[in-house]
Formats: sequence, C-alpha cells, structure tokens
Amino acid sequence: MADAPILKPQPIGGFPEWQPGEKLVEDRFLEVIRRQFRRFGFTPIETPAVERTEVMTAKGVVDKEIYGLSRLAAADDAEAGGDLALHFDLTVPTARYVAQHMNRLVFPFRRYQIQKVWRGERPQAGRFREFYQCDIDIVGNGSLSPLADAEIPVVIHTIFRDLDIGGAVVRLNNRKLLQGLVESHGVAAERFAAALRAIDALEKIGRDGVAAALVAEAGMDAAAADRLLATLAAPVASPQDLAGAGSGPLFAAGLDELTQVVDGMRALGMPDDGYRLDLSIARGLDYYTGTVYETVLTALPKIGSVCSGGRYDDLASAYTRQKLPGVGISIGLTRLLARLFEAKIVTPAGQTPATTLVTTMDRARLADYLAIAAALRTAGIDTEVFTEPKKLGDQLKYADRKGFRFAVIAGEDEFAAGTVQVKDLAAQTQESVAAAKLATYLNREDK
Amino acid sequence: MADAPILKPQPIGGFPEWQPGEKLVEDRFLEVIRRQFRRFGFTPIETPAVERTEVMTAKGVVDKEIYGLSRLAAADDAEAGGDLALHFDLTVPTARYVAQHMNRLVFPFRRYQIQKVWRGERPQAGRFREFYQCDIDIVGNGSLSPLADAEIPVVIHTIFRDLDIGGAVVRLNNRKLLQGLVESHGVAAERFAAALRAIDALEKIGRDGVAAALVAEAGMDAAAADRLLATLAAPVASPQDLAGAGSGPLFAAGLDELTQVVDGMRALGMPDDGYRLDLSIARGLDYYTGTVYETVLTALPKIGSVCSGGRYDDLASAYTRQKLPGVGISIGLTRLLARLFEAKIVTPAGQTPATTLVTTMDRARLADYLAIAAALRTAGIDTEVFTEPKKLGDQLKYADRKGFRFAVIAGEDEFAAGTVQVKDLAAQTQESVAAAKLATYLNREDK
Repeated sequence: MADAPILKPQPIGGFPEWQPGEKLVEDRFLEVIRRQFRRFGFTPIETPAVERTEVMTAKGVVDKEIYGLSRLAAADDAEAGGDLALHFDLTVPTARYVAQHMNRLVFPFRRYQIQKVWRGERPQAGRFREFYQCDIDIVGNGSLSPLADAEIPVVIHTIFRDLDIGGAVVRLNNRKLLQGLVESHGVAAERFAAALRAIDALEKIGRDGVAAALVAEAGMDAAAADRLLATLAAPVASPQDLAGAGSGPLFAAGLDELTQVVDGMRALGMPDDGYRLDLSIARGLDYYTGTVYETVLTALPKIGSVCSGGRYDDLASAYTRQKLPGVGISIGLTRLLARLFEAKIVTPAGQTPATTLVTTMDRARLADYLAIAAALRTAGIDTEVFTEPKKLGDQLKYADRKGFRFAVIAGEDEFAAGTVQVKDLAAQTQESVAAAKLATYLNREDK
Repeated sequence: MADAPILKPQPIGGFPEWQPGEKLVEDRFLEVIRRQFRRFGFTPIETPAVERTEVMTAKGVVDKEIYGLSRLAAADDAEAGGDLALHFDLTVPTARYVAQHMNRLVFPFRRYQIQKVWRGERPQAGRFREFYQCDIDIVGNGSLSPLADAEIPVVIHTIFRDLDIGGAVVRLNNRKLLQGLVESHGVAAERFAAALRAIDALEKIGRDGVAAALVAEAGMDAAAADRLLATLAAPVASPQDLAGAGSGPLFAAGLDELTQVVDGMRALGMPDDGYRLDLSIARGLDYYTGTVYETVLTALPKIGSVCSGGRYDDLASAYTRQKLPGVGISIGLTRLLARLFEAKIVTPAGQTPATTLVTTMDRARLADYLAIAAALRTAGIDTEVFTEPKKLGDQLKYADRKGFRFAVIAGEDEFAAGTVQVKDLAAQTQESVAAAKLATYLNREDK
C-alpha cells in the first residue's frame, strides 16, 4: 500500500465544511431553531434533495443556477437520466409537496423545513453553492387570516433571542400599503412594480439613486419622488401613525392588514424592541403580496437581512387551480454562521459534545472506569471514556485539547476510599468526590 | 393564471418522501440517535453532499451507482463542470475529511455523521436512491484499543432500547478469529478471503450452498467444510467457550480481541440479551479486519441486519500514509423506517408536533387567545393557536384531524371567571381549569 497513489484532499469552493467545534455551534443553532418551530406548532417536512427538472424550471427560474444529476458511466443518455436536479430553494419543493399531498394535509398547513439547498453559481467571496435554509410557512386553503402573518415574526424573535447572539429586530412592512403610498404619490398602477423595485434597491444604491430610478422607471416627478422617499424614511411607531400618509383602497387594505399583524404580534408577546415598522422594505419578488419581513442582527446590522419572507397569494399555481395563500420566512443558516464566525460573535466550541472524560490511568481497573462512564451516561451526562493505554498526563492533555469540562481520575487510593478525583479543566481545580455522588456533583457543577 | 399550464406532481421512484406523521416519527428516531451518539462522546461532523469525482472513485467503486453533477444550461462542458458527484456513503467523505483536517483533529477522533446519501441505482422494491445513514466511528492515529470496539455495540443497544420498537440484538464476531478457525480447518492463507466470502453468503444461499462454495472456492474437503460449519453454527455463550475451537496466532489474536471487546461491553452495561456472539458473521467487505457487527431487530428479524460495521486497519490510505485504524457502525435509517411502517411496528403520529390547540371562538377576544398561547409557549408547551374565523365545531374537528391532544376553549363565561375549558381529545373529556394554572395542568396531563 506504500506505493498506492496519494490524493491530496482539497476543499471545494462554495461548499462549506465546518471544523468539529464549528459544527457543534451549527448543531446548537439547529436545535434552537427546531425547538421554536415546534413550540409554535409547525410540523417538519422533508423533501428529496432532487425534483424533476420540469418542476424546478416551471416558474422560469434561471436554470443556469441549477445542478442537474446524471448517473456516471451510464451506458447511454437514456440510462444516465437527465430529468432530475438538486433543489435550489425549499419553496418550489414545498409547493410541489403541498399540491401532491393536498388531500391528506389539514389546512392551514403549518410546516417547517430545514434542509440544504444547492446553487450552481460560480463561487465568489461569501457565496455558497451548498447551504442550509430553515423555512417556516403557514398555508391556507382558499384564505388565510393576517393572524398567521403575526405569528411569523414572533417565532423569529424568539429564535434570535435564544441563539444568544445579541438579538435581532424583525423589520416589517406591507406591500399593499407600499403600493398605496406609491399610488398616493401619483404613480399609475402599471408602474407599481417598477416603483417597488426601485425602492427595494435603497440599501444598495442609496436615496439619490432610488429617487432617480423613481423618476426614470416609475414616471414620478422629482418632487413627488422626494416626498415619497421622505415618507418612507420617517420612523413609524405604530400603524396608527400612518393614517394620513396615503389614501385609496390599496393603502387602506394594507394599513388594515399591518394593523392586525402588529396587534397580533404584540398580543403574542413580541416586545417593543423586537420589531420595527419600515416602509422602505419592498422585497424584490413580486411573489409577495402583503406583509413582508426582513431581520437584522442587533450586533451585526451591516450584513443585512439574515431572515426574510412575506405573504403570498398562491403557493402552488403551477400544480393546482386551488388557491393556496400563505406566509413564510427563511433563515439562511450557513451564511449567518459564516458571518458570526468571521465577526467572532460566536466562538467555536471544543471537539466534543461531552462534558466529562473518564480517564483510565490503571489498565488493571478498566472495568471500573467503564462502569463509572456507564453510570454517568445513565444519569444523562455526556461522557467519553479514554480508551488508549497512555499516561495520565497525556490523557489530561487530550481532555484539555478536546475541550472537556471535567476529567474523572481514580487510582488505587480512590478505589479503596470509594471516591474519585474530579478535575475541572476550565477552573483548573480538583476535588475529591464520593463515587456514588459523582453524577449529582457533575450535574450541579456544569452550569 | 387560470390558463397557466398545470404540472401534475408525481413521486420520483427511489426518493422517499414521508407524510407529516411519518416525518414526525423520523424526527423522533433522529433525536434518539443523536442523543445517544452525543451521550457516548461522539462529535458531529457534516461534509458537503458532494465530493470530487476522483475522490469518490479512488477505491475503484463501481461508478455506475454514483450521481454526477452538472450545471444545467451551462454554455459549454467546462462551465458545466463534471468533477463533482453526490456521495454514496459517509465513509469516503469521512476518510477525506480526516485526512484533510488531520492536523486540527484530536485522536482518537470520535465522530458521528447523520446525512443523506445517494445511489443512482435503478429503483426496485425496497431499494432507495436517497436515504439517511447514521454513522459513528472511532479513529485512532497509529493504533486503537479494542475498548473502542467495545463501545460501539453499547451505543447501538442503547439506541434501539430507546427507540421503543422492541429492542435489537447486536451480533458480533471477529474476522481474525474467523480466519483462524478457517485456517484451523485446513484452508491456506491465500484462500481466507474466498472462505469468508462463502461464509458471508450463509443467510442467502443456506448451509449446503456454503459447504459447496467452501469446497469449490476455498479448497476444503467436504468433511472439513462440514466440521467448520458445525463450529460456526454452535451457540457461543462467551469467548472462553471458544478456547479449543481453533489454533494458531490469527485465532489467538482474534480470540484475545473478542474477549476484550466482550469484557468491555459488559463493564459498559451491555445486558446479556443485548448481544450475541455469532461465528458465522463475516461481513462481505475485506475492509474489515477485526471485530464485525450486525444488528437484528427482535420484533422483525426477517429483514436482516439494520445496522452493521466493524474494525478496519486504515481509514484513509488513499489520502495519507499515516495509519488510521478505526471502528464504526452505520444505521440505515430510511430503510429501517420503511420496514417498521410496513410491519406496522411504528404508527405515524398526527400532523403536528404540538400537544395543544388554543381555539378562537370569539374573534373579539383574539388578543386574549393569543396571550394564552404565548403563556403556554413560554412554559415550554408546544402550542398552536387557531388563526381562521371558523365555528368552534370546525376548530375542534381541525384539532382532531391534526392530532392535537388538547384543545383550549374560552368564551365570555370563562373569561369572566378566569378559567378555560380544556378538552382532552384523546380521552374525550372536558374540564374547567383556572387560567393561571393552565400550563401546569397541561404539563401534568400530558404523560
């Protein structure tokens, strides 16, 4: 085997791979996200990594970003198959899932979906070709109350509170309200989309750029564009403040929805500093028809929205004539984690999920060490037992490098006395503990 | 949109998609598996879904089973890329991962990995093209104690105990011991592999078939083959029973390893009925060099091994000259679940992870219902609040269809009295509970 060719393993651009300590952080995040999704009554679904290519391209998405599949070394093209492709988001699969299983689902259908998605883009700084999305949606059959829109930001607030990264603010708006405002400033209905696209670029091209775009693309005169932008920039404490800001049925409908959403959110326990009304949020996609959300980290606002979504009129128009209005949001977990690691807001943990290493200094007492480990595990303590014939000093070095909190040590004296030594590797202290009380001791100390 | 073409969504053969109730079961299984992997000190890693094609085919695996990736609608072949492929197991990615990150890992490296894998096989009954594998491995640098081999079956025993599907028995053997037995029955070293391959087919082709194969492939005479098969079939209560069954250094080394593994397992709390020594287990792959495992469900033995693995000499010889011996095992979760659903050993749950639905019969009191839901969620109770303007009867029907345990009901009388009605949908009973004590009540009843 010494002559076997050696392949040098290399990272693949755009496909992130965490170190063990980083993966432990990702798992903690996934656990918090999952727990809150379930806490609010969302049920998990999981779709295959692939969809039929015709499903993936049904909405005319740029198919260059899609990875197609083929069987390597197939005898011919038919055998290779070319009709499957990796999903590039979780919205298309969910739409297909809901349409396919509609008769068995109970509506409103509240689902969460945490899966990787793939985009065959050229890799560039900060862009991933494989990443986790964590989505929730509430989908109605025929209709869906704005109360559903009120729940989404509360879920997101609770998650970012529990992630322990300094919290986040959910910014929200309503596209009908925004269209009504645009209309109230003189834009014709057929130019709403152009106006909203211009407003959506506010962070990217700045106020002057948007003003110019509103004139050029949406047919506004400069003064009206200026007044509109001043309205969009003004702080809004509550929907009631907006009563005189616009007029017309679109504006009224949007204001009514936004009022219900804010009232609902507050009744659901959203604190004042957990959300902000922001009239300038448009969300690029015309897919959204009512409430829209963006989420900004309090500790890292400059990375932009880490969690966006909104209300849509019809989830699955490509597959069914049944009207399925819904509201949803998506956390881009991989990008979020990468930014948090870069900014050192989150520090990777050690290389073990366990708190405790049972050392094995005396190989003649192996059975006793294993019994200690077994008892700790039964008591719910994540425990590793050191398996190799090494000196105690090496075992403690190992414990330190791997990031255990405690090392349990016992030799003849301890076995004779019915005790063990517990070394706290964080505090650099050591204590003698009755063997029978070890689990209780570790559970108490591990706070 | 009424004229838009309608695509009929269809299942894709070999790519399973669970219904919500089935997915809740899968999530419960994943949670049990993850918890016990961590309980024993295994740390999670996750590799991309793809590897470079050269890495995937480094060991000469039949590449027809591999799905290659290409960017749809790329301008040319170079842009399409053809150098990436979906992983078909988690062993190749782990070998590459360990070699790539070797300098940052602490050995013995104990990792778990729960991911989907893909195989581009022609779909046939019971075969999946996408499925979950749940793997653990302990990898040493240079050497690894048989104690590591002792831990693996205890993890697996604990998982199958906690899955609540009637338990499982881990069958184990040692390939050195088996080679030593074969040698003691007159087979030459260069025919060990052929003999073990024959023995590995025991369940498939039966005793007579194996006897014939031992004669034809391994050069045994019929009487010796018969004696060997009798030895392999005899029950073995403990390794000590085997003392006289064979001779020679291979046999002695295998027996010594097996003895250490069994002693270690027992010290770690493995009960007598949790494992069985089975000399006929060979595992087809020559990759395994010592301990080998198979796992059979007590309630469903006929589906064969649901969790197999063993000890190997060198994890990553394709990438590094560093010797990395290890031991591991893999649960084929998707296949296991499919068989359990088919056999009705596991029954899919409802369509919600939540226990409690807060109904909303009086739309004027929406804020109060939302506050009740918020309080329950804060108390750790998974809760949905009914969002739509429907009659109470419809809401209760919804609760029933979705599978909630409790429906919380309140009207003017209850609000005036500071109480709520709790309907237990399983027991079909209803009780009045003080609003302030609702969370305590639900936590107590939900046993």
